[in-house]
Amino acid sequence: MAAYDYQLLLKHLLEHGISWAPAQEIVFRDQIRYTYSDMYCRVLELASALQHQGVKVGSKVGVIEWDSHRYLEMYFGIPGIGAVLHTINPRLSLENLIYTMTHAEDEVLIFHEDFSPLVEQLRARLPFVRKFILITDRKEAPAIEVDGEYEEILAVASPLDELPDLDERSQATLSYTTGTTGKPKGVFFSHRQLVLHTLSGWGSLPPISNYGPMDKREVYMPLTPMYHVHAWGVPYWATLSGLKQVYPGKYEPEMLVRLIMDEKPTFSHCVPSILQMVINAADAKGLELENWRVVTGGARLTKGLALEARKLGIKVTGGYGLSESCPLLTIANLKPFMEEEWEEDRQLDWKVKTGFVMPLVKIRVVGPDGRDVTCDGIETGEIVVRSPWLTPGYYKDPERTEELWAGGWMHTGDVANVDEHGYIQIVDRIKDVIKSGGEWIVSLELENLLSLHDDVQEAAVIGVPDETWDERPLALIVLREQAKHRVTSATLREHLQKYVADGVIASWAVPDNYAFVGALPRTSVGKIDKNALRQKHGSP
Amino acid sequence: MAAYDYQLLLKHLLEHGISWAPAQEIVFRDQIRYTYSDMYCRVLELASALQHQGVKVGSKVGVIEWDSHRYLEMYFGIPGIGAVLHTINPRLSLENLIYTMTHAEDEVLIFHEDFSPLVEQLRARLPFVRKFILITDRKEAPAIEVDGEYEEILAVASPLDELPDLDERSQATLSYTTGTTGKPKGVFFSHRQLVLHTLSGWGSLPPISNYGPMDKREVYMPLTPMYHVHAWGVPYWATLSGLKQVYPGKYEPEMLVRLIMDEKPTFSHCVPSILQMVINAADAKGLELENWRVVTGGARLTKGLALEARKLGIKVTGGYGLSESCPLLTIANLKPFMEEEWEEDRQLDWKVKTGFVMPLVKIRVVGPDGRDVTCDGIETGEIVVRSPWLTPGYYKDPERTEELWAGGWMHTGDVANVDEHGYIQIVDRIKDVIKSGGEWIVSLELENLLSLHDDVQEAAVIGVPDETWDERPLALIVLREQAKHRVTSATLREHLQKYVADGVIASWAVPDNYAFVGALPRTSVGKIDKNALRQKHGSP
Repeated sequence: MAAYDYQLLLKHLLEHGISWAPAQEIVFRDQIRYTYSDMYCRVLELASALQHQGVKVGSKVGVIEWDSHRYLEMYFGIPGIGAVLHTINPRLSLENLIYTMTHAEDEVLIFHEDFSPLVEQLRARLPFVRKFILITDRKEAPAIEVDGEYEEILAVASPLDELPDLDERSQATLSYTTGTTGKPKGVFFSHRQLVLHTLSGWGSLPPISNYGPMDKREVYMPLTPMYHVHAWGVPYWATLSGLKQVYPGKYEPEMLVRLIMDEKPTFSHCVPSILQMVINAADAKGLELENWRVVTGGARLTKGLALEARKLGIKVTGGYGLSESCPLLTIANLKPFMEEEWEEDRQLDWKVKTGFVMPLVKIRVVGPDGRDVTCDGIETGEIVVRSPWLTPGYYKDPERTEELWAGGWMHTGDVANVDEHGYIQIVDRIKDVIKSGGEWIVSLELENLLSLHDDVQEAAVIGVPDETWDERPLALIVLREQAKHRVTSATLREHLQKYVADGVIASWAVPDNYAFVGALPRTSVGKIDKNALRQKHGSP
Repeated sequence: MAAYDYQLLLKHLLEHGISWAPAQEIVFRDQIRYTYSDMYCRVLELASALQHQGVKVGSKVGVIEWDSHRYLEMYFGIPGIGAVLHTINPRLSLENLIYTMTHAEDEVLIFHEDFSPLVEQLRARLPFVRKFILITDRKEAPAIEVDGEYEEILAVASPLDELPDLDERSQATLSYTTGTTGKPKGVFFSHRQLVLHTLSGWGSLPPISNYGPMDKREVYMPLTPMYHVHAWGVPYWATLSGLKQVYPGKYEPEMLVRLIMDEKPTFSHCVPSILQMVINAADAKGLELENWRVVTGGARLTKGLALEARKLGIKVTGGYGLSESCPLLTIANLKPFMEEEWEEDRQLDWKVKTGFVMPLVKIRVVGPDGRDVTCDGIETGEIVVRSPWLTPGYYKDPERTEELWAGGWMHTGDVANVDEHGYIQIVDRIKDVIKSGGEWIVSLELENLLSLHDDVQEAAVIGVPDETWDERPLALIVLREQAKHRVTSATLREHLQKYVADGVIASWAVPDNYAFVGALPRTSVGKIDKNALRQKHGSP
């Protein structure tokens, strides 16, 4: 008999967690509390029920659900039988929902009753979805016609004895990422990728920062939606580790604060705005959150927010990843010498950075000349990556895959510097960087410096074509009401020259041209719409 | 461009450790102290030097060396260029050394000068070894003719820019394990296997027992020789983690205690007899070892030794693995509820067990009827295993590979029970178990119970053929001098019946036959030689 060719499968993470901690708790809001053993039985029931519904190896199963124990069951149960878990972002526009589900070829749609109105709108446009399965906590008959209800199909299923063996390169998940332009792009990950992402995370999440290592007593509560790149993969890691897990359902400040107080999570992750929401809610109640560690990602963690968090006792650390990268790439763990030798304020400067690479991640920061930047915390380049858990491409999109993987490195589109200790700091998106005379001018940096002028309410900097330099920066300025008549281009140029003198920016980075406008256009999520600005002001 | 197909390679562990902790220390005895950066340069020099010596992908490089920083360099540098690191156990007999090096087809032999006399003896019998490279710390010319000296070949090498990419399934290491019968057997591991072993160990070594989690400040010192199954793989894990590492060279009690006091290792692993040696040396000096955690393996950790260790402050935990399994399979980490609810003495009972499986290891304990044993801590069966880091077979030995992997599970040859919490306890070797009437009688248990009789100095139990029951136990007894005339078979049968009454053993386990002998034969390593006993007493 030949040796058993062990494949890296999600079920192995699940099985280990179950055997280590069969009686450990999983909590859903203030509604449900059950054990890892219960969860495992239900995963095996779900797997069987889906097979009964005709789900096969390679079938796509779409899910629209809040953060719940049921979503955790689907994280394992759907890929566990070789099907593909398509985590659907319910905030997509109706057209994008139809586009992505059509593109994914979802055969089954499992959705929470909160999204019934949405599903009613979608249904006629999704003829390929064979089965609609409802999730509800209520006992009454659903107000929508479906092929089954989640709890009912589990109740009548004969559970599988165990999840089957699969090839570790089998596709496990699929999700879509939307940019400001073009159609949504599908990213997909295999069992092998998710297992390696989990094992590497295991080594880099525990020693978070100067807050002491994490251990087997941690309590985990996600605050990044589970439809968003596997909630950073942490539900897989928490299950492997046998940790108590708390799922908050729909994010509502009152419920979140209540769960934090009652269930005492010690570890969460979220975007800075959600952290701000929890801080506000907790602050209003005068609560302390001494034992709560939070890793933020998705947007820059400002030092101001980190300080605010610290006032409540929250221990916060920056991290970084993309939909294309499963997502974790870096985390701002401090090195021992920083914790031992540096003052707290300097430590915080590093803890709000984009971070240090996780094990098995190789990052290069490549400047406009194609060479790696100097590790001086100043020179900027694009972050390109290799690691075992990057999407092999955009789903069914060879053209954009080619761009993503140009030169055999995955292009993140993020522009960053690297300091002498190897910590990365993102400073801009590459499409917003101004390419001038073979060098890059970071738009966000100029905007930040311009906004420091007392008379400037808001600033945006874009590149405009230039015959000599390829591009030159144009600053679009919204002045404060009272300053409208006293500020000129010369005022602002002079303001920026101070930063040239201090070595903060290069002299050639100072914009020649300034346009004073009444307001700046915004995208649907409230960011300054630079595409619109470039269209309007981009001609020379 | 297609996505980069990231392979799991040892160099990725090394590169992460170097970038995280370039200034971290590696210490060799009281002789050498250098940084991770220095180490990385030397690995790249070694890789280049070996290529210069004609070492190619697949070449076997034999190493005979004590635990040193140089061995660590070879752990990465030899597999790093696609060659195979053959870790040679210098304690093998001369014939077995020749057999294994011939079988491995070593092209290069790197050896410490302490083994020069041995190499002189071997040389004529190893015509296929093209290059002999000496390791010495002395400046004088070596007393043996060689093709190069380790430090010299590094000094003149132009270091590689980086280690090359390889297929993750490339063979990285080879070593030989000797049984009591037959030729030594080669076990071999790929880059992929060693990387996964390291990542899993990362998750299970840190939370060792009730001593709190390990963190990035640990100091590692191996006390299992580096020629013995990758020193349990911990040098790879320590390097990935950027820990301070202390290499003790040849194990000498004085030096070990001095390093423990001066360099303050917080984590080691060893066989119980080495732990005993260190305890004796430390005890003689009246030293405390409060911050030292030790995982033992290779032989049963007795509660007595664990208590003795605890008196000195040493925090000790059982573990288990085989040469065939890379080696780690289990570790006796306690579950949180055991630490919170159990008294210290009961905790210790579990901490000296064989242990709980590591992540990605699947163990079954299969009884004589082919079914998994009940998890009651009593019923016994053979441990069979699946995991990503088991040897695919015995090197160039299809017949014994077939036996090892019978039924698609790797057979450990160890007989164990499993308790209700999933912890394994090895009780015997399968070849020593007595197969009687379709049940197994554990020889070690009977020997232990017999030795509890005041008049018994020593006991061995073997199976002898029986027409009705296949086998029946025969007890060979060495009586204490003064008891020689008062003890009969009936005395001992009556003694064992007490344990039947208490439910410790089954009635059919009590031997019918007893033979009183003057002494028991021993193997070269001091174990009772059951093969010899079976040859002499095994006929019915």
